[in-house]
Amino acid sequence: IHEPHFPNAVSSLSVDIHSLQKQIDELSTFSDTPAPSVTRILYSDKDVLARRYIKNLMGLAGLTVREDSIGNIFGRWDGYEPELAAVSTGSHIDAIPYSGKYDGIVGVLGAIEAINVLKRSGFKPKRSLEVIMFTSEEPTRFGISCLGSRLMAGSEALEKALKKTVDNQNISFLDAARSAGYAKVEEDLSSVFLKKGSYSAFVELHIEQGPILEEEGISIGVVTAIAAPASIKVEFEGNGGHAGAVLMPNRHDAGLAAAELALAVEKHVLESQSIDTVGTVGILELHPGAINSIPSKSHLEIDTRDIDENRRNNVIEKILQSALAIAEKRGVKLSEFKMLNQDPPALSDESIINAVESASQYLNLGHKLMISRAYHDSLFMARISPMGMIFIPCYKGFSHKPEEFASKEDIANGVKVLALTVAKLSRY
Amino acid sequence: IHEPHFPNAVSSLSVDIHSLQKQIDELSTFSDTPAPSVTRILYSDKDVLARRYIKNLMGLAGLTVREDSIGNIFGRWDGYEPELAAVSTGSHIDAIPYSGKYDGIVGVLGAIEAINVLKRSGFKPKRSLEVIMFTSEEPTRFGISCLGSRLMAGSEALEKALKKTVDNQNISFLDAARSAGYAKVEEDLSSVFLKKGSYSAFVELHIEQGPILEEEGISIGVVTAIAAPASIKVEFEGNGGHAGAVLMPNRHDAGLAAAELALAVEKHVLESQSIDTVGTVGILELHPGAINSIPSKSHLEIDTRDIDENRRNNVIEKILQSALAIAEKRGVKLSEFKMLNQDPPALSDESIINAVESASQYLNLGHKLMISRAYHDSLFMARISPMGMIFIPCYKGFSHKPEEFASKEDIANGVKVLALTVAKLSRY
Ligand SMILES: [Mn+2]
Ligand SMILES: [Mn+2]
Ligand SMILES: [Mn+2]
Ligand SMILES: [Mn+2]
Repeated sequence: IHEPHFPNAVSSLSVDIHSLQKQIDELSTFSDTPAPSVTRILYSDKDVLARRYIKNLMGLAGLTVREDSIGNIFGRWDGYEPELAAVSTGSHIDAIPYSGKYDGIVGVLGAIEAINVLKRSGFKPKRSLEVIMFTSEEPTRFGISCLGSRLMAGSEALEKALKKTVDNQNISFLDAARSAGYAKVEEDLSSVFLKKGSYSAFVELHIEQGPILEEEGISIGVVTAIAAPASIKVEFEGNGGHAGAVLMPNRHDAGLAAAELALAVEKHVLESQSIDTVGTVGILELHPGAINSIPSKSHLEIDTRDIDENRRNNVIEKILQSALAIAEKRGVKLSEFKMLNQDPPALSDESIINAVESASQYLNLGHKLMISRAYHDSLFMARISPMGMIFIPCYKGFSHKPEEFASKEDIANGVKVLALTVAKLSRY
Repeated sequence: IHEPHFPNAVSSLSVDIHSLQKQIDELSTFSDTPAPSVTRILYSDKDVLARRYIKNLMGLAGLTVREDSIGNIFGRWDGYEPELAAVSTGSHIDAIPYSGKYDGIVGVLGAIEAINVLKRSGFKPKRSLEVIMFTSEEPTRFGISCLGSRLMAGSEALEKALKKTVDNQNISFLDAARSAGYAKVEEDLSSVFLKKGSYSAFVELHIEQGPILEEEGISIGVVTAIAAPASIKVEFEGNGGHAGAVLMPNRHDAGLAAAELALAVEKHVLESQSIDTVGTVGILELHPGAINSIPSKSHLEIDTRDIDENRRNNVIEKILQSALAIAEKRGVKLSEFKMLNQDPPALSDESIINAVESASQYLNLGHKLMISRAYHDSLFMARISPMGMIFIPCYKGFSHKPEEFASKEDIANGVKVLALTVAKLSRY
């Protein structure tokens, strides 16, 4: 049995940032919208091509590739004690409409490159190392965020729901999965569940999606907790009618009810007086959506987050009260107010925080402890494994839009810290 | 030369309301959405089928059918002095998404039935009678209301614009027209223009699209003026970003700017303190439209109407000022504020008002003078011909939704009044 070469071999840690950048650029071309925007929706043709691209890179890195029945992809490097629980790392490659090419991607391509770095350095892992590409971190198609990691973490509610879940074209989740080559035999998706203890650690590398590291000139963010996201679907129903003929006092305009609620969300979030409370109306749709027709229905989707679960739930309660009051005032019906999800926050594991910090120190990289305001697959991996995250700076904190950017240097630093972190974790 | 049989033959005026209702029901099946809703968009497959249905009925009524190069359809019954300008009547059969089966339809199928009524009565017209089915009264596909009548009335601005007009799928107006069998040879659509004086009168039969006739138990509305419609397209551009990571003070949310403007439209309309002023935001779209993405762009279409053009234009000015103030306050860009149209109101011709009134009296039908708050092809026909309109009651004033309804009795009354009116006008 070999002693692991880390940390003695660390001086030879070299990230092939040119190849990695080329991979990031190539992956961004699997998109349903023109560059520089990226749109990659779960199980679309472009998603299937991008998955093939990832599996190919995993193969080239010498990893053994496995996929589960909803398309979570695993690339395994067997350690010299392969019976031990593996150390895993990974992220997602799906991209919301008109977004950018770094969110998620850096944590998948960067993880494969971290494996290459360790292999080039001569390192041999004790625990096996696994790179995971999670299915559908983004809720775009089926309204479910972190679908892959949530199911992997054993959500029986999700397993049941997926049998009846359809997208907005009324295509079922199962049909969509089958069209991409998954969910082939079974209806039962519980095969995706992983037991607690399947991994000794999970680490995710990700762009910060916020401005702090860039503003403060710090290379590495060590995530201590992930803010708790909740999302709400709201529908109002009014009377509609002709935009010319129905006089103002006779109107019950579902669109104006939606507009009022959108502004109420902002108001209630600001009332919390905490910088950590955020709320967003990213979806607001009117029916029938014609210039000369009073909206008879409106549909909103609201995202609220906080690092304090109670404070967040208080905002949700106020939003509900506003929705009821607006419906009452305008004589429209609040036909739906549904929590799409309401997840608890997650804390990083102390040993992983320490491993990331010491890797940063070893590499002489400035680092700071911070909170993740965005959710990540790590939020759900925390349910079955000790969890940690590594953030790198990104341009102006931009994310979910084409201007999203992280520099080669910052990406290379992130990959090095990730490589050292998983190497260290693999020894325990 | 025969003397016209009207009014001697009037006792034999019989509307075949069962056939007419059957036609209304059949026409409603040419729809892109399920019954009871009707969706019939310009030049769609269903529109082409519906046009065939209308031409067939015109043929069965013994009318000579002609179509112009954008698909306005004309069915002519030659008078015994065919060199005189004809008396025309008609309306539209396109239907906005998820609307009903009476708006426009009653004025097309009812006009053909009015011809049948006159033919059965033995009446012979002096001036020729023409039934017109106008192309695209609704602005659904190309954002242009009363497209057919507007062009027929000689709008050179429209003729030019149509060469560059595209729908939201980027299909050009000309390609769409060609796919429906129109605009085949020429790029130049000025062949559609009709000279002032081409008709001695134009009369349109239409459901009221308002509650007054039903509430007051009156059978016939005699329209004296059509309210002046204006529509505005507005776009805001913000910074977008991730719904979790961008903190509230750093946001420039284009969606909330749109929500505020929608509420400002309502406010400014109500400030006019006139019951005749209306304003509607029927279209409000967010980009990218994802639950976890702050809207980076928003698009609104606003419809404002009034019987007083200055008062309406004052509301538009206030909406502009609000849009500028909202953009300033939220740090978003008001990237578009464009008048899509801003048409002057139209007055009915005294002689046509008189003809409709005397026909109603002759038939012992209660009637009242009223204003049309909705626009109609009549608004544009007024530019080239003396114009008048006949309204019939409709259920609760509903229109532009599936619940739109007019009773057989009211429709039959409207057809009789229309038949007598055009018969009378054809003698002068
Ligand atoms: Mn994302
Ligand atoms: Mn992500
Ligand atoms: Mn209409
Ligand atoms: Mn109409």
